[in-house]
Amino acid sequence: MVTHIEHDAVRNVESTSMHQVKTFTFDALPLQLGSHLGPVTLAYETWGRLNATGDNVVLITHALTGNSHAHDAERPDDSKVAWWNPLIGPGRFFDTSRYFVICSNVLGSCYGSTGPSSRDPRTGRPYGTHFPVITIRDIVRAQRRLIEHLGVRRIAMVAGGSIGGQQALEWAVTYPELVEKVIVVAATAALTAQAIAFSEVQRQAILTDPRWQNGNYQPGDGPEAGLAIARMLSMITYQSEESMELRFGRRDARQAGVVPPSGYPDLGKRFDVEGYLYYQGNALVKRFDANSYLYVSRAMDLYDVSEDYPSLEAALRRVRSKALFIGIRSDFLFPAARVRWLAEQVSAVGGDATYVELDSPHGHDAFLKEWKQMNDALNVIKE
Amino acid sequence: MVTHIEHDAVRNVESTSMHQVKTFTFDALPLQLGSHLGPVTLAYETWGRLNATGDNVVLITHALTGNSHAHDAERPDDSKVAWWNPLIGPGRFFDTSRYFVICSNVLGSCYGSTGPSSRDPRTGRPYGTHFPVITIRDIVRAQRRLIEHLGVRRIAMVAGGSIGGQQALEWAVTYPELVEKVIVVAATAALTAQAIAFSEVQRQAILTDPRWQNGNYQPGDGPEAGLAIARMLSMITYQSEESMELRFGRRDARQAGVVPPSGYPDLGKRFDVEGYLYYQGNALVKRFDANSYLYVSRAMDLYDVSEDYPSLEAALRRVRSKALFIGIRSDFLFPAARVRWLAEQVSAVGGDATYVELDSPHGHDAFLKEWKQMNDALNVIKE
Repeated sequence: MVTHIEHDAVRNVESTSMHQVKTFTFDALPLQLGSHLGPVTLAYETWGRLNATGDNVVLITHALTGNSHAHDAERPDDSKVAWWNPLIGPGRFFDTSRYFVICSNVLGSCYGSTGPSSRDPRTGRPYGTHFPVITIRDIVRAQRRLIEHLGVRRIAMVAGGSIGGQQALEWAVTYPELVEKVIVVAATAALTAQAIAFSEVQRQAILTDPRWQNGNYQPGDGPEAGLAIARMLSMITYQSEESMELRFGRRDARQAGVVPPSGYPDLGKRFDVEGYLYYQGNALVKRFDANSYLYVSRAMDLYDVSEDYPSLEAALRRVRSKALFIGIRSDFLFPAARVRWLAEQVSAVGGDATYVELDSPHGHDAFLKEWKQMNDALNVIKE
Repeated sequence: MVTHIEHDAVRNVESTSMHQVKTFTFDALPLQLGSHLGPVTLAYETWGRLNATGDNVVLITHALTGNSHAHDAERPDDSKVAWWNPLIGPGRFFDTSRYFVICSNVLGSCYGSTGPSSRDPRTGRPYGTHFPVITIRDIVRAQRRLIEHLGVRRIAMVAGGSIGGQQALEWAVTYPELVEKVIVVAATAALTAQAIAFSEVQRQAILTDPRWQNGNYQPGDGPEAGLAIARMLSMITYQSEESMELRFGRRDARQAGVVPPSGYPDLGKRFDVEGYLYYQGNALVKRFDANSYLYVSRAMDLYDVSEDYPSLEAALRRVRSKALFIGIRSDFLFPAARVRWLAEQVSAVGGDATYVELDSPHGHDAFLKEWKQMNDALNVIKE
């Protein structure tokens, strides 16, 4: 197997923050749904130092449009520049003075890891829709290769929310011998029909945009309107009726300058919530690849922890990690009741599982907002 | 004022059902947001006979993509051919042997009433986006003209669900002296921020479809993909996590032949819920006009019963009707708690309001499915 590391690849994940992203490339990954993908590059960041026994490792796994920048060592107190910044750092729950913390951009994404916008070695052009359908299991197996490459012998904690939570769960089931503790936040054994439905509406918005061009768009000439609409919808599903009412209610838009995906004038007036969604849609278009959105969101839908096992029980019986499941009261994408149920199923087959619920109105996104509650919940699993 | 009636206009609202739709045209309607619209035609159906005193009238008001065909006298036992069929007819709650039951297609729609696809007298071409932004109040004021034309002196009951419920509420507030009883089903004083957000995503899907052509599309050459996506999303909001889980779960699609809005192949597999949504999207495209969808859904968002009154209390204090509010436990578009709250506000200002909740998993659409519970709920207001 040929592997190499490109060090010092500095890239701008957030426009305001420069930080070091490393890459690791390996030759081929066998895929869950058949065939191989290769070469495969994973972009990743690390904080802290690996100890001599290679077992002081925390693996952080990110959500749909996230990236490796979970923590910003230069600006550790700014929760906007890195998605789990308040939870990571010296003296924080994921203590970088004690742990070697790793976060890699998922396979299929567009922040330096191999995805649909990467060069297909067979054609020399971007994969586009020639990229294979990937799964959460493939994402985790690629991470396993990175971990091995970094000299990790055992993982103290795997933790993530949303699709990151699916990855954490998958780690505990696929590599039970490697994972001491697993923290699954706002993720379930498999998506509900409603969540799949929301996902598919988002993908159809991208796929019907003529600028999608069967996936063969050039950088900067992609399905911007479709991707913006997808983001608008997903942003609704990441919040809750309660939080949107608190935040926007029926107020008029405070800023009129934000352009909607259509560019078409408002019908009568603009509500604040509409202006907010336009803004969020436009913001994602600037930083994310539409084909990556299709593939990673599909991996989310396809995920079922029991797949390829005789039963859910058989899958969960493999878990040997101490497991913490964190649900969010107002989450309707990954409902708290289903997170709790999953924790109960792990316990029922003899696992060591604890369930904690965040009492937040902020919906699914609470795991990226409720720092005090998140920290308290995480401390439940502290030894 | 010039008015005329076109009798015997037979049209095919559902492809399997022929029935008599009459039309009434009047010269001009002053609009809530300013200016006038005219001439205005309303398509309507009636069942039963108006009595000599003109006061045995039931007015039924329909939802977003509905039409005047609330009842089918030839096939009264088929709940598919007319949207409130099981509740209307001789001996049924809306008893056509006793009441003169009227249902008209709303202003802005495309089932015979004046809407964006109607001919703009100033240009001779369809209004398209030259159609003015209309409100629920405009819709109700147009209905008032129809009622007057039909010789109605007093309305025994106004009843409707969803946007139809908004209309019923608006009737009780705008014309308190005319309405003896009002039945507001799955409707609230005003939409939540979340519901507006879902609406706007739907409209953006239509507006970004290049075949929308700034609203100037020809019949049969409209934004079919955009409208189908809008319908896919709305169908999620009309159901519930619970009902979709019961109905689809994570099952594979049972029929592979349904074409998604994009026409693009499935990513990996097709879930049953996806095939269902494609089917629903395609079905709406065949029967509904995209511009009507924009305008009527906008009227839904804009509706706030308190508008132009000093306060919500001031608006609700006008209600003199005996009022029944029916909420649906699993409805997240018009949440039951908000329907109940509205009933409480009417009571609090001295009104005669009763709240009944349907214990249904079927979400918003339960008012079109739970016939037994609907009938029981309606009977609460029977004298």
